[in-house]
Amino acid sequence: MAEDIIAGRNSVTEALRSQRSINKILVQDGAKGGSIGEIIATAKARNILVEFVRQERLDKLVPGLRHQGVAAMVAPIAFQSLDDVFARAEAEGEDLFILLLDELQDPQNVGALIRTADAAGVHGVLMPKRRSCPLNAVVAKISAGAVEYVPVVQIGNIAQTIEELQRRGCWVVGADMDGEEHYRTNLTGPLVLVIGAEGKGLGRLVKQKCDAIASIPMEGGVSSLNASAAGAVLMYEAVRQRRCTGK
Amino acid sequence: MAEDIIAGRNSVTEALRSQRSINKILVQDGAKGGSIGEIIATAKARNILVEFVRQERLDKLVPGLRHQGVAAMVAPIAFQSLDDVFARAEAEGEDLFILLLDELQDPQNVGALIRTADAAGVHGVLMPKRRSCPLNAVVAKISAGAVEYVPVVQIGNIAQTIEELQRRGCWVVGADMDGEEHYRTNLTGPLVLVIGAEGKGLGRLVKQKCDAIASIPMEGGVSSLNASAAGAVLMYEAVRQRRCTGK
Repeated sequence: MAEDIIAGRNSVTEALRSQRSINKILVQDGAKGGSIGEIIATAKARNILVEFVRQERLDKLVPGLRHQGVAAMVAPIAFQSLDDVFARAEAEGEDLFILLLDELQDPQNVGALIRTADAAGVHGVLMPKRRSCPLNAVVAKISAGAVEYVPVVQIGNIAQTIEELQRRGCWVVGADMDGEEHYRTNLTGPLVLVIGAEGKGLGRLVKQKCDAIASIPMEGGVSSLNASAAGAVLMYEAVRQRRCTGK
Repeated sequence: MAEDIIAGRNSVTEALRSQRSINKILVQDGAKGGSIGEIIATAKARNILVEFVRQERLDKLVPGLRHQGVAAMVAPIAFQSLDDVFARAEAEGEDLFILLLDELQDPQNVGALIRTADAAGVHGVLMPKRRSCPLNAVVAKISAGAVEYVPVVQIGNIAQTIEELQRRGCWVVGADMDGEEHYRTNLTGPLVLVIGAEGKGLGRLVKQKCDAIASIPMEGGVSSLNASAAGAVLMYEAVRQRRCTGK
């Protein structure tokens, strides 16, 4: 069935606010308080069907997720094209800022990275079709609804995509252990940040294709950061350099 | 029983490396490959009992965690004192750098923040005894073993602790939505970063006690960052200011 499920009050509220195409909203019998009333009212105002169901139905629909008594059946996330991302940056009059996720498999990390990308003003998140975690309800929930705002592009071969981005004027910076300190890496201008999979890091060929490798300094006993923490640190260092150049 | 359980290959390896007091290591029958052989050899060299058990025993011991065939029974995390944290900074000849977690409840966030604190060179993580998530096997696993390295201090009243830290020369910066841009907030010198609970933010009184409020700029459709992402961005901005002042 060509439908995705979004669960949880924040995520459903974000889906409503983003004008995303929603087929139906399921509300648990007796659920109230918080934003439930507002969700129901907004849905009715937009002529979206609201169906009241037993808790067990929601539990089964999104096993393992805290649905908080509400879920929405939505059109699957509409992947966008690389051209859409370039157009978005141009429309906003900003230097392109792309996040490329190199085969990340953990939906927690992918969701958290998309949320941070939205906050940091990233124009698009690129993920390879193969060997990435699917963009499902878990990712949407962890992203706190940010998948509704940041264009996500499914790409084929990562190395070839990097070459295309370079031809189109981007500076491609990979995150890895043996690069220069990220504070001293140039992150201004049209930029692609590449984050590797937890445990594995960047693929060998991907790393070779990067224009620069940035390393976050590590001072402690454990020698790596979680992929979503590393991504947050790098994205916001890019934001700093883009805002505060000359500070 | 005054014992904690650490699960997963990385976490058990870190516990062994950190010379933490380990009572026993449980290895799943037939588990091998990866670091299992090394864990068993190190344990034997240190005269730590290794017991081979069925998978079901491990599954029951740490329900819901990926134990990867190995767990360790360890002395509970030895909380340290504020004086220990001050002594550590002094011994390392560094300006004090403390992370204070204001009633964080999500073990995922607490574990991730402790891991990032370790990487960023934080001297101690302070958590109130009440209304915080317990420092259990989940936190230890998510921290990738960093709880073995970063001193954790249990505190009583947060506002009173902030006053004490201020009397002892610290500059206390809270993370919240309505402060000055964090890039422009002074994060040098003896520093305490205060991170609020997800959803709730900083407590009202805690916020009043802070010397400054730092805000991470938000550009997207979702108006907040996850607590662990916000903490990572702030800690590494502090590292930058401490390293690159004058850059």
